Amino acid sequence: MKIDIGPKNCLYPLPTTLIGTLVNGKPNFITIAHVGIMDLGSVSLGMNKNHFTNAGIKENGTFSINIPSVKMVKKTDYCGLVSGKTENKAGLFKIFFGKLKTAPLIEEYSINMERELIKTVDFPNHDVFVGKIVTTFCDEDIE
Amino acid sequence: MKIDIGPKNCLYPLPTTLIGTLVNGKPNFITIAHVGIMDLGSVSLGMNKNHFTNAGIKENGTFSINIPSVKMVKKTDYCGLVSGKTENKAGLFKIFFGKLKTAPLIEEYSINMERELIKTVDFPNHDVFVGKIVTTFCDEDIE
Repeated sequence: MKIDIGPKNCLYPLPTTLIGTLVNGKPNFITIAHVGIMDLGSVSLGMNKNHFTNAGIKENGTFSINIPSVKMVKKTDYCGLVSGKTENKAGLFKIFFGKLKTAPLIEEYSINMERELIKTVDFPNHDVFVGKIVTTFCDEDIE
Repeated sequence: MKIDIGPKNCLYPLPTTLIGTLVNGKPNFITIAHVGIMDLGSVSLGMNKNHFTNAGIKENGTFSINIPSVKMVKKTDYCGLVSGKTENKAGLFKIFFGKLKTAPLIEEYSINMERELIKTVDFPNHDVFVGKIVTTFCDEDIE
């Protein structure tokens, strides 16, 4: 028997990723699970316009997507609870840069992708950033 | 130690969904995992332009998203292997309609969402359809 539960979005947000940007020249990270694949090389991030990160993506036209292993659960959760407006999250990680120079990547995360912003789709309360993949780094011993 | 593996998209496509449309007035279903959340009420589908389904979404401005339980793995896989151009997939399921009347929903799938097309984002080989949720149905005894 089916029941009508109204307009509920039942797509659970996943996978959980950590998005890296430079905001005012400083690395910042935010936990985002509202991600999606647009075409084979392009990924979307649905981000509320209130987030600190959005200005960094717009300014630099770049961002990183870092995929955590289970070991990084606590720090990944923390980065989704506090804002870069008030907390310096850069100090939590070993950071490196790849080709883009403005998309901070995290050494402790198993997979790191550099993304170039190719489109922004405007929603009333969200910026949807679409990034084309530039380079991917991964741990040599990833299982 | 990090290694550069080139521009690889390492976001695994998920969750797996079955998209329903009417194409030339007949229900058709396709398995799509290139889905994403744009804002809280809107979902994207990244669909290669070769698919039979795309014309139905454009014509009706509606589609359904059906979320399978484990029991429906075989039929869900099958709908991703064969095209509606050559196979009638409507006969595989018990179909019902909700408010939209042009978005076929599947009785055997645990969760069914009716979507209204609000944007199409154009990529070279893909249509990215963005749908706003209209109604959700679910099994009364879903766990």
